[in-house]
Amino acid sequence: MDETATTTRAWRMVLERIESDLLEGRLAPGDRLPGERELASSLGVGRSSVREALRVLEVMGLIRTGTGSGPTSGAIIIATPQGGMSTLLRLQVAASGFPLDDVVSARLVLECAVVEALAADADRSTDAAHGVIEAMDAADLTPEEFLALDAQLHLAFAEASGNVVITAIMAGLRTAIESYIRAGIGRIADWDAEADRLRLEHRAILGAIDAGEPGRARTLVHDHITGYYLDADLSRASH
Amino acid sequence: MDETATTTRAWRMVLERIESDLLEGRLAPGDRLPGERELASSLGVGRSSVREALRVLEVMGLIRTGTGSGPTSGAIIIATPQGGMSTLLRLQVAASGFPLDDVVSARLVLECAVVEALAADADRSTDAAHGVIEAMDAADLTPEEFLALDAQLHLAFAEASGNVVITAIMAGLRTAIESYIRAGIGRIADWDAEADRLRLEHRAILGAIDAGEPGRARTLVHDHITGYYLDADLSRASH
Repeated sequence: MDETATTTRAWRMVLERIESDLLEGRLAPGDRLPGERELASSLGVGRSSVREALRVLEVMGLIRTGTGSGPTSGAIIIATPQGGMSTLLRLQVAASGFPLDDVVSARLVLECAVVEALAADADRSTDAAHGVIEAMDAADLTPEEFLALDAQLHLAFAEASGNVVITAIMAGLRTAIESYIRAGIGRIADWDAEADRLRLEHRAILGAIDAGEPGRARTLVHDHITGYYLDADLSRASH
Repeated sequence: MDETATTTRAWRMVLERIESDLLEGRLAPGDRLPGERELASSLGVGRSSVREALRVLEVMGLIRTGTGSGPTSGAIIIATPQGGMSTLLRLQVAASGFPLDDVVSARLVLECAVVEALAADADRSTDAAHGVIEAMDAADLTPEEFLALDAQLHLAFAEASGNVVITAIMAGLRTAIESYIRAGIGRIADWDAEADRLRLEHRAILGAIDAGEPGRARTLVHDHITGYYLDADLSRASH
């Protein structure tokens, strides 16, 4: 029993040490952590505790772990928040910690703010969004391919708005409900008609952004998201 | 080298198995996972891989791990998203994955939406917020105590709005910049005057919510957050 408690403290201690090294600038993105063996001996903990802390950092998107031994075997600090956020949100939705309705409401709040800010920004670039919208015109897309491009379009808006925190959270929220969104395809009576409607809505949203009309962009995105949500009957899927 | 690669795959496989068990309802909050030894043998992986996956789930707020052996030693599914979100955001801010300015902008988007929704909701209860605001009137609070209550107040608004996803993200964003907010105290010339100003602003925000004025609540929260941000010179702290 004591042994388990000690092990628990040990991996948390490794995590806290790396966090404080990051906060105080002793570690920065691009830096390589010492190998497992060296970390273990310098921190006075077992190698398994080090490995547990490294897994946590890896899933959270803080490090990329190397394989093999030798000078290139240590993990590299990367700080790519999107992956970690997606995993966390996906797991919480799976474990019923996050009701689907609340995820959709959170998406609405963030996506409306994103397009509003984008429309209000004279320096915006919407080239990426235009590219995705053209790709979505292809006639032979499966519903799954269409929805993958759809996710890419919404992300392009977030990226163009320039806020990496909001982009990571939006990407995570979308990933978290991806399986429900895909399951919703089967509940849509006429997919071709739905896809045509979504295409028109995308063009209208992008038009409002390019025309610099924040209020209209916000309203269109709101109706666009709630519309698919209702058509695919996603609200019922969460109960 | 092969051994490391195999180990990596093994812990991810444990994680994916637990996620699919959650998604398909074979596991639910309150359920107990089998012990490490049993999980390892049923999944055909080593105990250390099981332990690595459990640590990830623990930090993400998905399980509470038991100590000791015997029938009560397995981890329990809990699904409490706040802790995991806070850890993730805090680590990403520490590793410069998330610039402070973007965290503050994301907070603004979410907090403005929260008070707007609350003011528009005829069934809202603001009792918790009133309680915290009264506690903040105490004359002998240290700046640290004052800011802890401040965080509690903002969380009370989020909780009253009823969206657990937004509440978890807001709590996480606040935690992520807690050390910067506290460091900002030292850059405020007259703390007592600042605290009095914050008290007045809190009462005005709560007044707008209780009066059912969404637009005014939103504007007041926006000015409240950006005001402290400027006074404590937090923007410079991120560079």
